[in-house]
Amino acid sequence: MNTGNLFGQIPTQLPEELFQLLAVGQGARVERIVSKGHASPPGFWYDQPENEWVMVVRGEARLRFEKDDRVVHLAGGDYVNIEAHERHRVEWTREDIETVWLAVFYQESGE
Amino acid sequence: MNTGNLFGQIPTQLPEELFQLLAVGQGARVERIVSKGHASPPGFWYDQPENEWVMVVRGEARLRFEKDDRVVHLAGGDYVNIEAHERHRVEWTREDIETVWLAVFYQESGE
Repeated sequence: MNTGNLFGQIPTQLPEELFQLLAVGQGARVERIVSKGHASPPGFWYDQPENEWVMVVRGEARLRFEKDDRVVHLAGGDYVNIEAHERHRVEWTREDIETVWLAVFYQESGE
Repeated sequence: MNTGNLFGQIPTQLPEELFQLLAVGQGARVERIVSKGHASPPGFWYDQPENEWVMVVRGEARLRFEKDDRVVHLAGGDYVNIEAHERHRVEWTREDIETVWLAVFYQESGE
């Protein structure tokens, strides 16, 4: 058993988004992501082989989905379940405070 | 893609702990658990076939582990990674407010 805090050990400078593996198993991994004013590069879309369940635990962000050009605003406790190959990008995160995400990547049943 | 809020739709009465499936895939599932003064029955130990990464997002709780009789106190953002068959119980949760947990159950790599 090991322990930690999701808001702990955040560097004061975040030139890049911070991705940290918290747990990993067969077909699943749990990651902490910390953003501060970061967004996906222009024209970039995530197109992932796995499903992603992702929550903004603290802070604020906007995701854009290619399908229907839908924008989803996320603040404390808001989560999105993103299917594999559902193309999306991080449109915006707050610049004044850290946005802390919890992401669970997992394989679809029966894949 | 579907969305929700981890703190949404909590019943005003919680005679039992609330377990809700948020996402499920091959060898992994994400659950919300809501407790309010609940604890595991006397003498009861969870002895799970899967690993569990669990975080108290809001509220406060104590887990007890059989090994070394270790007690872990959890408050906002504190997480524990519990290995399969690591026997543990919920010793205490706050009675005055809801404790909202996020749990990810996953299989060990190579199992």
